[in-house]
Amino acid sequence: MIESTPLFTQAQFVVETIGIIAFALAGIIQAARQKLDAIGVCAVAGLTAFGGGTLRDLLLDRRPFFWVEHTELLWLIFGLAILSISFMRTRHMALTQRAVLIPDAIGLGLFCATGTQLAIAMEMPALIAVLMGVISAIFGSVLRDIVCNEIPQVFADHQPYALCAFTGGWVVVGLTWLGFPAWIALIGAAMFATVFRLAALWLNWRIPQWRME
Amino acid sequence: MIESTPLFTQAQFVVETIGIIAFALAGIIQAARQKLDAIGVCAVAGLTAFGGGTLRDLLLDRRPFFWVEHTELLWLIFGLAILSISFMRTRHMALTQRAVLIPDAIGLGLFCATGTQLAIAMEMPALIAVLMGVISAIFGSVLRDIVCNEIPQVFADHQPYALCAFTGGWVVVGLTWLGFPAWIALIGAAMFATVFRLAALWLNWRIPQWRME
Amino acid sequence: MIESTPLFTQAQFVVETIGIIAFALAGIIQAARQKLDAIGVCAVAGLTAFGGGTLRDLLLDRRPFFWVEHTELLWLIFGLAILSISFMRTRHMALTQRAVLIPDAIGLGLFCATGTQLAIAMEMPALIAVLMGVISAIFGSVLRDIVCNEIPQVFADHQPYALCAFTGGWVVVGLTWLGFPAWIALIGAAMFATVFRLAALWLNWRIPQWRME
Repeated sequence: MIESTPLFTQAQFVVETIGIIAFALAGIIQAARQKLDAIGVCAVAGLTAFGGGTLRDLLLDRRPFFWVEHTELLWLIFGLAILSISFMRTRHMALTQRAVLIPDAIGLGLFCATGTQLAIAMEMPALIAVLMGVISAIFGSVLRDIVCNEIPQVFADHQPYALCAFTGGWVVVGLTWLGFPAWIALIGAAMFATVFRLAALWLNWRIPQWRME
Repeated sequence: MIESTPLFTQAQFVVETIGIIAFALAGIIQAARQKLDAIGVCAVAGLTAFGGGTLRDLLLDRRPFFWVEHTELLWLIFGLAILSISFMRTRHMALTQRAVLIPDAIGLGLFCATGTQLAIAMEMPALIAVLMGVISAIFGSVLRDIVCNEIPQVFADHQPYALCAFTGGWVVVGLTWLGFPAWIALIGAAMFATVFRLAALWLNWRIPQWRME
Repeated sequence: MIESTPLFTQAQFVVETIGIIAFALAGIIQAARQKLDAIGVCAVAGLTAFGGGTLRDLLLDRRPFFWVEHTELLWLIFGLAILSISFMRTRHMALTQRAVLIPDAIGLGLFCATGTQLAIAMEMPALIAVLMGVISAIFGSVLRDIVCNEIPQVFADHQPYALCAFTGGWVVVGLTWLGFPAWIALIGAAMFATVFRLAALWLNWRIPQWRME
């Protein structure tokens, strides 16, 4: 489904790796907050980076998983976790958190687009394909927060995050339905979701709240 | 296994939908208590409604999932979640919680019966079939409570709930073993578990406690 | 892959059962601490005993699960849970916790070794095989702690546990790579991980901590 010219595939791999590293760093920061030990930091970093894609593949019954094909990324994440434990200080955490916002938004866009596209290629209905994109993009952070014994941030912080993935997924569906080639649908949707997320951060958009008295 | 005369199948679909809506409403109320945002409410409603059946299907390696075949139910649940956010007030919550007790018990009965029957059809041992029924019936609410950062209610509130599903599952096994047709086993077991649950609520039955000094 | 002379297989089954009982008891104690009801105790005991192996099998797409093949072990664990509820007192808990440390270490060693070996037999890369061993050994307790609404102990108590499983997994990989027969790799790695764990307990070894100011 994805036009796999070597160049395009390579570019995608590079961007995907950036997104995964951003997710892993978010996991490491959360693990540090909860004072997990070195094992916990590695585990949470890995869960955050690969949890979403793995759940999507379990639901779609796809194998092999991304991290089984690319074990070098697992080593990278373990290395990142060990480095963080050795050198990260409290004052670095806020900085890191701000620094990963942009790669995280890129990861969000890319994962929702590839997840949706994979599910379309497996002939899932449109809504299911979009949900698979959303699951790819957000479930790593949901698992991270569950392990860290907190309510998942994406379900409670009133900022558009899953919503960006959801609309991004529909962009893939729409562009595919309009007959655009897969790589345009992928890039278009990923950019749309990423820009939506960054705009939401900059302009401080909120999603509706309960108005209970 | 299930005698699929169109009429019976349709009746089952209607009852199943009632059960799923009851489960989704329980999820929405819990999500409101924890002040999740709109995305969180949709996610928790969906998890509560479909989590149990999905875990059962993952364990039994069955595809497609119920919500993949019936995407209209997903739209229904999203709609329900959005409506609740817009119109539900704190004073409605206790009322809703009481109002869903009966459809929830119906859902419990039906899901444990269909779950057990599916596993019997896949030639699982009796105990495993019954466990699959229990998982179908309770795991949505277990996932709901884990996401909402609480100890799962079905494991801690000392009321028979999983126990009703467990005995209902054995009724399916017994009736099947006695040679009754599948639809009688299904209806008999579902009614047994539902009545057991409602009796337990009315008469305030308790399951055994730790007697630690 | 495992030299299945009946005698060896039987010995392995006995040791595995000891490990599973130790895991189940750890689950029961945790469930008691959180004052779960009888259903919760059974559920947490089962999750702790079988959760790790089941997740490994889900990820590797292996069926049937261990507890589907050996339903007698499920009955055993339910019996154990009911007995504990009836007879366990607060003063027994610390004692049980100490008493299970040795069988728990044996379970840890055996599960990491068999998990790794299974994945090697399915031609997984070395790192993935080792991770499957670690998941088999630790994930039951991770699920137990998530259900009990606590941060997973193996990620936060600064004692080597997952680390023992991780190194034990590499011993399997190393011995297999050196051409040793599978049963020697299994026994060697299981003993290594078990002794590592017991030594870590006796000598109070710690894994590195965050050094944040």
